[in-house]
Amino acid sequence: MAPPSADLDSTVTDDAPDAYRDLMDRYARVSHLESGSGVLYWDQQVTMPTGGTAARGKQLAALSATTHEKLTSDEMADALDAAEDADLDDERAANVREIRRRHERNRSVPESLVEELTEHRSHSQQVWKEAKADDDFGHFAPALETLRDLQVERAEAIAPDRPAYEVMYEDGEPYLPLERLEEIFEELKAGLVPLIEEIEASDADLASPFVAAGPYDEGTQRGLSEAVLDLLNYPDDRGRLDVSAHPFTSGNQFDARITTRFKPEDPMDAFTATVHEFGHASYELGLPDGRFGEPIGASLSSGVHESQSRFWENHVARTEPFWEGFVDEANDHLGTDATAREAYEAVNQIYPDNLIRVEADELTYHLHIILRCEIDRAVVEGDLSIEEVPRVWNEKMDDYLGVVPDTDAEGCLQDIHWSSRFAAFQGYTIGSVLAAQLDHAMREDLGDVDALIREGDLEPLWEWMTEHVHSHGRRYPTDELVEEATGEPLTAEYFLDYVERKFGDLYDL
Amino acid sequence: MAPPSADLDSTVTDDAPDAYRDLMDRYARVSHLESGSGVLYWDQQVTMPTGGTAARGKQLAALSATTHEKLTSDEMADALDAAEDADLDDERAANVREIRRRHERNRSVPESLVEELTEHRSHSQQVWKEAKADDDFGHFAPALETLRDLQVERAEAIAPDRPAYEVMYEDGEPYLPLERLEEIFEELKAGLVPLIEEIEASDADLASPFVAAGPYDEGTQRGLSEAVLDLLNYPDDRGRLDVSAHPFTSGNQFDARITTRFKPEDPMDAFTATVHEFGHASYELGLPDGRFGEPIGASLSSGVHESQSRFWENHVARTEPFWEGFVDEANDHLGTDATAREAYEAVNQIYPDNLIRVEADELTYHLHIILRCEIDRAVVEGDLSIEEVPRVWNEKMDDYLGVVPDTDAEGCLQDIHWSSRFAAFQGYTIGSVLAAQLDHAMREDLGDVDALIREGDLEPLWEWMTEHVHSHGRRYPTDELVEEATGEPLTAEYFLDYVERKFGDLYDL
Repeated sequence: MAPPSADLDSTVTDDAPDAYRDLMDRYARVSHLESGSGVLYWDQQVTMPTGGTAARGKQLAALSATTHEKLTSDEMADALDAAEDADLDDERAANVREIRRRHERNRSVPESLVEELTEHRSHSQQVWKEAKADDDFGHFAPALETLRDLQVERAEAIAPDRPAYEVMYEDGEPYLPLERLEEIFEELKAGLVPLIEEIEASDADLASPFVAAGPYDEGTQRGLSEAVLDLLNYPDDRGRLDVSAHPFTSGNQFDARITTRFKPEDPMDAFTATVHEFGHASYELGLPDGRFGEPIGASLSSGVHESQSRFWENHVARTEPFWEGFVDEANDHLGTDATAREAYEAVNQIYPDNLIRVEADELTYHLHIILRCEIDRAVVEGDLSIEEVPRVWNEKMDDYLGVVPDTDAEGCLQDIHWSSRFAAFQGYTIGSVLAAQLDHAMREDLGDVDALIREGDLEPLWEWMTEHVHSHGRRYPTDELVEEATGEPLTAEYFLDYVERKFGDLYDL
Repeated sequence: MAPPSADLDSTVTDDAPDAYRDLMDRYARVSHLESGSGVLYWDQQVTMPTGGTAARGKQLAALSATTHEKLTSDEMADALDAAEDADLDDERAANVREIRRRHERNRSVPESLVEELTEHRSHSQQVWKEAKADDDFGHFAPALETLRDLQVERAEAIAPDRPAYEVMYEDGEPYLPLERLEEIFEELKAGLVPLIEEIEASDADLASPFVAAGPYDEGTQRGLSEAVLDLLNYPDDRGRLDVSAHPFTSGNQFDARITTRFKPEDPMDAFTATVHEFGHASYELGLPDGRFGEPIGASLSSGVHESQSRFWENHVARTEPFWEGFVDEANDHLGTDATAREAYEAVNQIYPDNLIRVEADELTYHLHIILRCEIDRAVVEGDLSIEEVPRVWNEKMDDYLGVVPDTDAEGCLQDIHWSSRFAAFQGYTIGSVLAAQLDHAMREDLGDVDALIREGDLEPLWEWMTEHVHSHGRRYPTDELVEEATGEPLTAEYFLDYVERKFGDLYDL
């Protein structure tokens, strides 16, 4: 079993400057309360009875308001000043830098607004679930509008002179300017749109032997998910697999839980979701145990997190060597007799007529993301009213993907994100781009990674990621981390190379 | 389905005095953080992977320290002073009284001690689990000793001039003096010991047709638990049933969850545990929704809580009318053909040679409790060293019950309680005594309760309890609540009458 965490000690030792220890004690309180909130959030999504929503909203609101109060208190400000005057090594200085950043970002936001936002999120998640189930956007619209107003109010409190959307984006991605990301989006559009057109024009027709042999019951699919988690060295004693409406990962280096969901007709849907969430968990589990509660013991950003899920999903579980090693086990579970090549093709079909982001292929996925970013930016900036969202969604779907959903449930109501935040989709694309860049660097270092994947010898891959990404936590800003790990700043080049090579082969381009 | 909560509004309305509203806002924060901790505790017992212990200890410690800080702050003291000067109705005054009591009780306890105690509890629960699994008291002893020292330190901080044990006892039972309870213990011993002797001397031999037809798999037993929860009107949308090592209930008026555990050979073990925990949940669910976060919207004490579990377990599910109504359904689930009388006898066997408290019958149960109270008092008062606990346990078992455990796992390691607190067992006996008194009062009010139970028409019973107990929350101190509900103070008389009548019939005495 792969070591689930980096072997690094706490920086809060007896010989650390007093001012530093005082600051870190205060911050640990904030951090532990936040990770406690994470458990309440997980419970709400996985185990909580529906009637619990009202109480949960109040519990989470009390937690977020208390955390906010402690993070932005005068005592924290004084502790920061004192720690900044102390003589600190690089890691301690990185911790102080990160606490300063969070303190500054939150200090102008009123506690009452934090509380209101948290309570509204619990409420609007419930409303979103109902609206999606009933295909009733009108039911969700008022909650979405309130969320927009509260989030704009918060962004303006943080930085009154800067665009609210940019400020919101930095919640997930503090170190990668939105402008840089938009350049990457342009490069991707330029590369992906013609590639998708070529694929649509090609004669190759990839099919799934797994779909052909379906449907599958939940027990069978769970067995397959557990088998791959076993292969991936996901530790039983630091994680668990559950089912939720929207797959997600929650936790820390000691307890990183994943969820999946089972579509009876296509077992590869849950399978890839499980591997994807494992990737998120691998990041949490790779953080140093000894630094739990320190910024450098926590994950860096949503984009870097997503690079880990994408790496395992796409660069491991969607490769031909993986299926050369795993197809027999999959066949055993599913009662199929697919070949490795057939399985490889099955998980790499390109289908632009798909409506659902989380079911999208590796190429059209990013058009789903770009569409969402355009819409949520327009909503935040007041260029698009809430009631126009369904219409614009459908127009853009037609424009980018040539397909229009029949229902809002399969359209603008499909994702949970707009029940809690805006400007949160960018991380998914950063993740894909960075995953390809990390994959390239790992192959330079480790040599024949395909052979390791084929043999199911996956420990070295996780260890490489732990060494180059996980173990650093928030030690470096994103670009420095990417340079540290890959030798150059973030670039879309490796991702475009990868998809052109991979799909060129699969679709005989 | 029974109404799961009393229909009472919040007392924190716009027309309430400002000072009252300010106090209640502050207290709501404390209360919501505490109920958030409850979710983390539930998760730790039910869903958390074992590796999560270290992080959970820190999360819970941060929560308890923060709660303590807010409850005991100067701002809370000022808010209390101001609210006490305002013109308040009885319910608001009761809220203020309860907040004052908690504030005074905690203000002299250092925050660092609260944090240390909470973290130690998470640690020692884990150690207790291991020690019990390995039957190794020596592994647990150091954690128990540290707990004793920390709890004594806390009690001395709360009230330096009073016996530490009494102070600890008041955590669970603030309004029923330990002295009163010890008188009740004496009355019980005087009544129960001869009754048990008579039963042992009697020729009657009660057997279980369910044990004879066992063992049963978990699915079958779960089906039976779900059937009885359905009959009891336990609401799906405000509760859930899980499995844990030690059955327990956790939650509030919106979300009250229960656990049970399945013994393959005796399905009545899980069955009665499920009904018992339902009783606890019925109390939480009967608290007023509108008062969530107020003292008068929360349960009163561990003894009153236990009266609710005992009522449903003993005065409903261990009665002959219950089995006249339910035996066919039980037979269907278990594949048995018991008669109502056989089932009634099965769940009312008296077996003094039982080693395990949670499996004890209604009579010997209280000898298990008295034994524990004597031992934990001696440990706290320094009259008994930790290493002597196993020996003294076994001596007392021999003395009171005529049976000695072969292992500490079945002896002094059997209960989870000593991994977190002392002086906590008294509530169980208060519960049995009060349940019988409430049962008597309910029968005076509702008339033919036996007929309702036989018909499975249990809503009126839950409603009566909600009206007379649940809806008051912490509105009255224990004795006043008992008088309000039954017309007289707590007395052992009804319990002794009840067991003499019931077991006199069952054992032909």
